[in-house]
Amino acid sequence: MEPNAANFVPLSPVSFLARAAVVEPDRIASVYGERRLTWREVETRCRGLASALRRRGLRTGQTVSVLAPNLPELLELQFAIPMAGGVLNTINLRLDAETIAYILDHGESRLVFCDAELTPLLEEAFASLGRRLPVVLLEAEAIPVEAGAEGGSVSYEAFLEEGDSEETFGPPEDEWQAIALNYTSGTSGRPKGVVYHHRGAYLMALGTLVGWSLPRHPVYLSVVPFFHCNGWQHPWALALVGGTMVFTRRLQPELLFAAIAREGVTHFGAAPVVLSLLAASEHAPAAPFDPPIQVLTAGAPPAPAILERTAALGLEVMQVYGLTETYGHVSHCLWREEWDSLPPAEQAEKQALQGVAFPVTEEFAVLDRSTGRPVPPDGATQGEIAIRGNTVMKGYLKDPETTAQAFAGGYFWSGDAAVVHPDGYVQIRDRLKDVIISGGENISSVEVEGVLHQHSAVQAAAVVAMPSEKWGESPCAFLELRPGAHADPEEIVAFCQQRLARFKVPKAIVFAELPKTATGKIQKFRLRERARKLAADPA
Amino acid sequence: MEPNAANFVPLSPVSFLARAAVVEPDRIASVYGERRLTWREVETRCRGLASALRRRGLRTGQTVSVLAPNLPELLELQFAIPMAGGVLNTINLRLDAETIAYILDHGESRLVFCDAELTPLLEEAFASLGRRLPVVLLEAEAIPVEAGAEGGSVSYEAFLEEGDSEETFGPPEDEWQAIALNYTSGTSGRPKGVVYHHRGAYLMALGTLVGWSLPRHPVYLSVVPFFHCNGWQHPWALALVGGTMVFTRRLQPELLFAAIAREGVTHFGAAPVVLSLLAASEHAPAAPFDPPIQVLTAGAPPAPAILERTAALGLEVMQVYGLTETYGHVSHCLWREEWDSLPPAEQAEKQALQGVAFPVTEEFAVLDRSTGRPVPPDGATQGEIAIRGNTVMKGYLKDPETTAQAFAGGYFWSGDAAVVHPDGYVQIRDRLKDVIISGGENISSVEVEGVLHQHSAVQAAAVVAMPSEKWGESPCAFLELRPGAHADPEEIVAFCQQRLARFKVPKAIVFAELPKTATGKIQKFRLRERARKLAADPA
Repeated sequence: MEPNAANFVPLSPVSFLARAAVVEPDRIASVYGERRLTWREVETRCRGLASALRRRGLRTGQTVSVLAPNLPELLELQFAIPMAGGVLNTINLRLDAETIAYILDHGESRLVFCDAELTPLLEEAFASLGRRLPVVLLEAEAIPVEAGAEGGSVSYEAFLEEGDSEETFGPPEDEWQAIALNYTSGTSGRPKGVVYHHRGAYLMALGTLVGWSLPRHPVYLSVVPFFHCNGWQHPWALALVGGTMVFTRRLQPELLFAAIAREGVTHFGAAPVVLSLLAASEHAPAAPFDPPIQVLTAGAPPAPAILERTAALGLEVMQVYGLTETYGHVSHCLWREEWDSLPPAEQAEKQALQGVAFPVTEEFAVLDRSTGRPVPPDGATQGEIAIRGNTVMKGYLKDPETTAQAFAGGYFWSGDAAVVHPDGYVQIRDRLKDVIISGGENISSVEVEGVLHQHSAVQAAAVVAMPSEKWGESPCAFLELRPGAHADPEEIVAFCQQRLARFKVPKAIVFAELPKTATGKIQKFRLRERARKLAADPA
Repeated sequence: MEPNAANFVPLSPVSFLARAAVVEPDRIASVYGERRLTWREVETRCRGLASALRRRGLRTGQTVSVLAPNLPELLELQFAIPMAGGVLNTINLRLDAETIAYILDHGESRLVFCDAELTPLLEEAFASLGRRLPVVLLEAEAIPVEAGAEGGSVSYEAFLEEGDSEETFGPPEDEWQAIALNYTSGTSGRPKGVVYHHRGAYLMALGTLVGWSLPRHPVYLSVVPFFHCNGWQHPWALALVGGTMVFTRRLQPELLFAAIAREGVTHFGAAPVVLSLLAASEHAPAAPFDPPIQVLTAGAPPAPAILERTAALGLEVMQVYGLTETYGHVSHCLWREEWDSLPPAEQAEKQALQGVAFPVTEEFAVLDRSTGRPVPPDGATQGEIAIRGNTVMKGYLKDPETTAQAFAGGYFWSGDAAVVHPDGYVQIRDRLKDVIISGGENISSVEVEGVLHQHSAVQAAAVVAMPSEKWGESPCAFLELRPGAHADPEEIVAFCQQRLARFKVPKAIVFAELPKTATGKIQKFRLRERARKLAADPA
């Protein structure tokens, strides 16, 4: 009883699109201002795009890059590029030109879909690369377009016309085939090229629908960047439930709130820093959303204080945890009934846990790396989060050594230090490299940041190690204050002293804007540099 | 970048149980009268059972049979037998002893879990088989139990104690490994042994959660027999969302309504004949369920008249369609918004369609078998439903010829004649072998039955071909009347004449109890025999 064409079909999220065209043909797939496209239209356009890519010579396994903010075209490309057999490489648009050039070169990209606003950045990247790639321009009605010669550019709609939208495309020959190439943010050294396969993307989409209890016909606000784990795989998942993706191009709170009201948004995902902006915005509605909007947050552990504020706004936030290497989420902080009776502040603390395994995660463990054994669920013993499952990357492109290290002993090692509570919920203490070791004691920067976020003047906080002659390292806090708020270092220190063990209280307080990645992650390596300079020269 | 232990884990629904023990440990998994077990308890018991099975010598790929009504033990066995590497063979308890003996022999069963009430049937089967198998008795507190010698019997709880519930079991080595062996009802000739694999069962469970929009923590009434496609795969799916399965042992309406009220049932699945019984029951509550209970129905196209009555009862019914060979459902009749404004009778007609592809079904097509091409979506041209996907059986056990026929041309051929409507919704016209060909015209028995169900006196109707000298075949209707209702053949014929083309009106009307399978399917082959005798000797 060997597999045959009737009973074995390689898993691919691209298959969800063909189903959407039959099952939900007239549902709106994408909304962008006045532009609305149904799933039938999106499916037809994707076949046209895939056909055009093949006619341009794209072969199975070759990379196609995308450099653009969230726009309806990105929903299409997320299906069309893999449909053509290509590998989708969505590039972080806040990277510098030199790094973008590195990615285009390292990933051997054949073609770039580029937003019209970003052509200067792309041109700079081409200059750094020393060669040009064919370019397809998004939103190109805004600027003049050259003819589509090799090395030239063509508008997205003209490119689509190059294809035959009657062409059909089967599943990949092998579900292990690459579907996407996502570069890590590269906080140290060159970014690494994380390769996803069709099987994992299919399972992640299904797992997200189950893990988030996503109903039929969600109206989903596109906030999570497409370059972050392919929009947390949400675009693929939405096709399976006839969802509508609402685009605003820019992530300004007034635009987001207007879109929520106009389109009746029911769901979105966002980094904690975006939630913080929404909660603080003067454009926030006076009454909380009713019914509440379902929100996933990831990218950094959300501070309990932020969760308290978003709850008051009518946002029902579930934290999910994962990494680029794990297609996004591998755990979620599922609400437990016994939390119902807790006061809001304690509920928010519970919600800030990283939680339990996502439905398609086979193992979400906290292991003692030296022994490979699970740490006891005592809420105190630290280990490293280790993951096993079908939504773990194939590996790092052209980097077998780092790949082998990442997979040592049959797990993907996250680099995150965590504890397990008696109820089985995992809590990150820190990135292993962010742990501050002061006088031989471990200090979790996350714990200290949690206290700082409770201070009413604090908008964002980051705590890093500062070299100390006496203690080896001591905590140094960088703080962003709320608009119009004031605080002085002594007051902050006093606030911490009331809430933290003495050795955990920051020894230095710096008020400054925090450097962040495009996904809202604070770039601690930059703050560590500043802390080192500060320690060397306190003036 | 080859698969390794970190990024490739064979898919198996057994993995959902380990997750449930961590994620939903204290949620009730099974309820049976006063007996309640949590998911943590069920998981522990399953490890004990799997350990006991291995200690009894069970090897990977060997068959273990179950002969019992729906009981909490069956939920456990559905996980424990595959966990031990065994192949789960749940036998239809309404089969005759000789057929059961055939199944035990053909499937090479090693052990039988048997309900205490069914031991006489099993003993008869052993007599027919000419040998005994080891037996584990369910509900054995009711009757005396022998020692657990080879060939003897042991109680379920004593068997469980033979194992070590500390033992752990990994995923199968290969996701293509057999997980279940389900025999077709065998309406003609010997039943066929349909083999499922772990991959398909995993995907079907995920697909069901998505296709039915199953939320977290459903309270599910166990009505669908476990021997029907492993309870439509629902037990596996429930583990992933912390569901509770409510058991009543017998499917009497008063017991079911009492369980619904007591446990707050939110979901169940049932054949149309069960829905009909519920709707007609004097135990039905006066007010409709609010919120409505979500119901899947399958096994036969539900008559619109039944759907109208269940809607009034507060049952939100979605029809699903599939076969034993497809792990259950491959299509569902998803509600369309444009139906909202239709009158109830027309809504019920829409809901009686077989609908569109289930989320994990790769292709749900209606093909012209001679050309292999899809029929036009005109609601009139008939073809055969053909299916492709990962929830199609591995094949028929020890029957390569029939397997090859079933998979001709890379599709699984359902044997069901159907049309496709302009909105893409598929409607079964008939089992191909149930089509009545009268004077060269095709008559759909389903269409005639639909009209008969509209008659207020009719409880159940079945229409089959009766040999006719003049027409070749003519329709013959067998009718079950509602308790206390009266009707005469002339009245029924007149009723049909007003609603059907002349040639479709039944030429003979017989009032009789309809022979049914355990899953509520009417055994038309028996009625065809009666119709043949009737034609030969109308007296």
